[in-house]
Amino acid sequence: MTITGATRVYAIVGDPIAQVRSPQVYTTQFIVRGIDAILVPIHVPEGNFDAIVPALMKIANLDGLLVTVPFKARMVQFADRLGSTAKAIGAVNALRHEPDGSWSADMFDGIGFVRGAQSKGERIQGRRVAMFGAGGAGSAIACGLADAGVASIDIIDSDAAKAHELVGKLRGIFPACPFGVADSVSDGTDMVVNASPVGMRAEDGLPGTIGKLEPSTLVGDVIIREDPTALIRTAMKHGCHWVDGRDMHAGQVDALLAFFAAASRSTNPRRVVQH
Amino acid sequence: MTITGATRVYAIVGDPIAQVRSPQVYTTQFIVRGIDAILVPIHVPEGNFDAIVPALMKIANLDGLLVTVPFKARMVQFADRLGSTAKAIGAVNALRHEPDGSWSADMFDGIGFVRGAQSKGERIQGRRVAMFGAGGAGSAIACGLADAGVASIDIIDSDAAKAHELVGKLRGIFPACPFGVADSVSDGTDMVVNASPVGMRAEDGLPGTIGKLEPSTLVGDVIIREDPTALIRTAMKHGCHWVDGRDMHAGQVDALLAFFAAASRSTNPRRVVQH
Repeated sequence: MTITGATRVYAIVGDPIAQVRSPQVYTTQFIVRGIDAILVPIHVPEGNFDAIVPALMKIANLDGLLVTVPFKARMVQFADRLGSTAKAIGAVNALRHEPDGSWSADMFDGIGFVRGAQSKGERIQGRRVAMFGAGGAGSAIACGLADAGVASIDIIDSDAAKAHELVGKLRGIFPACPFGVADSVSDGTDMVVNASPVGMRAEDGLPGTIGKLEPSTLVGDVIIREDPTALIRTAMKHGCHWVDGRDMHAGQVDALLAFFAAASRSTNPRRVVQH
Repeated sequence: MTITGATRVYAIVGDPIAQVRSPQVYTTQFIVRGIDAILVPIHVPEGNFDAIVPALMKIANLDGLLVTVPFKARMVQFADRLGSTAKAIGAVNALRHEPDGSWSADMFDGIGFVRGAQSKGERIQGRRVAMFGAGGAGSAIACGLADAGVASIDIIDSDAAKAHELVGKLRGIFPACPFGVADSVSDGTDMVVNASPVGMRAEDGLPGTIGKLEPSTLVGDVIIREDPTALIRTAMKHGCHWVDGRDMHAGQVDALLAFFAAASRSTNPRRVVQH
């Protein structure tokens, strides 16, 4: 790879940034696909988000942005248009710079989680899911799982009101899928997912009460770490199949690259967010 | 080279940007020196300079900036402190992010031009110089040449007032060097330098009246082009030695990398520009 003045630029914004995997993964993909582009890590201190990000979006050779913790919800305000998943859950993880200078955004964590699991040979359809975490990641993954045909989803969050709010939103988007709020993993569950931040720190334990794990239960965890989280270690101990944050990250690469490549030639975009 | 989340970022800002050589040159130097860093091209549309650049300077993993046309003078306002050359001529081409978050700036085009010539075996000391262009590049190169011990410098610019203003400034900085304003290359000149924009377009001719070129005359041109400018072609035709914009660019690489590496630990910087 050679970076020249003509190389197109993509960036990932987050705080912190040193741990992100996207610069390596996407820059390699650009090389493999013969695209003269790089993906650059941009450390945006949380207090400077509103000062930095709209300015970045005026850079003429910046073709796309990825968004990671803690900015997935805050980024929505700066998008000119939102895809259906982003609009439903109020969070984005990718934006594309259109030829007219506007920005289109969507959320790929849900499809990434589902495709990451499927690429490991796991079945999603028909699963009875218990998911910890009703935040941005949980919202995205619940949408991905419902879209992939799971039988039901229970949401577990220490903030029960937040869980109820998410369930209300999900019922509106997927009226055929039964959603509920729970405080622990109920009998009959055959898929347990952690979409909460528990596990980011090495000393973290399980995200909540997971009950007895059968080997047929599929275990998922959004956390990206070198060493497995307590939840993934428990899954291994009980002989369960599992998918982790790296699988979710790898699972969205193709979808994201297709999103970036589809810069629309629309000359009269419908703006869902004005700024 | 692999770009990871921990890779440090440098950027060059300009309008246009596709023609710049710094991303390739400096990223290669970082690799050779074992530094995990890249230099990224950033296309800042001229009208968005004030909106984009101060925001870029808040990015926590951005360690340095290079500045090219047309921003070398406008960038001065955003530096917290200026080196002596930058202060004298009111233009910068490099900024360094200090550990306390402030930015130090200086101008390396002059030293680059001198070192680029010297690295080709050319003598600078004692030369009687005629230079076209009294702008940022001309100011920087006049300082570099005076500092390297030329015998005299005549400044030629279609805007005579601008030439007189530069000469006044230069006399204050280098009282021992004779400076003058001229409208063509005078007899006895043995170094002709173009520091004007003439030559950037393929159809451009000479920057002015250069008279008869002796083979002993050293010819310099700041323009960076794949094919030689009219001035360099004339130099070749008359058997003159010459240095061009690429030599000037190559000549400042070591000085610039040393500048970037010397991030000061000063905790109480003297601010020459407040913002």
